[in-house]
Amino acid sequence: MPSPHASSPTERLDGLFAALADGNRRAMVDQLARGPASVSDLARPLSLRLPSALKHLAVLEAGGLVESDKAGRVRTYRIAPEAFNGLEAWVAERKAMWHRQFDALDALLAEQDNKA
Amino acid sequence: MPSPHASSPTERLDGLFAALADGNRRAMVDQLARGPASVSDLARPLSLRLPSALKHLAVLEAGGLVESDKAGRVRTYRIAPEAFNGLEAWVAERKAMWHRQFDALDALLAEQDNKA
Repeated sequence: MPSPHASSPTERLDGLFAALADGNRRAMVDQLARGPASVSDLARPLSLRLPSALKHLAVLEAGGLVESDKAGRVRTYRIAPEAFNGLEAWVAERKAMWHRQFDALDALLAEQDNKA
Repeated sequence: MPSPHASSPTERLDGLFAALADGNRRAMVDQLARGPASVSDLARPLSLRLPSALKHLAVLEAGGLVESDKAGRVRTYRIAPEAFNGLEAWVAERKAMWHRQFDALDALLAEQDNKA
């Protein structure tokens, strides 16, 4: 389980990806993407007991994907949008690196064509 | 470790995210995004022993992020671009759900303004 005090970028990414490596946690993310929810709202469609749902939510919060606040006795969970923006940026960077690889190859082939 | 025979979409996503939940494996992905490499090319910058590097590469292959082929005695690893496209689509779907949530809220508020 990732530490809730993880601070280095590599620890943050470890926690983010580990949190998403579970179908129940991804289902909770999907539900929260549609709107804020309480632990019972999140546990019910997955037929999870509350302690189990709370454990999954703790992993999602530690991974930075979910935030919560308490009003009276009810804790409400919501999506932490920065995590999704971070994940989107991470994927986009790798895709850009990977496209540069092919651009470099194209340039090399074009150069060889010119020499031929 | 995800099964290399994982077949359901949820198992595939479990394997994909679990593979990315490790700094050494993400560093391998970064290197492969810049071009194909052998296991020794990948082990060296991370100061990993070959058996350890091979284990990480097996997790990346099982997660669908990396492909390899063998020419003679040398196995070459490369990025599996579909995994990145899949990851990008997964993030984009959640962001779209999340934006619809706010669009619905905006519509509700506009309706209340019209009534007031």
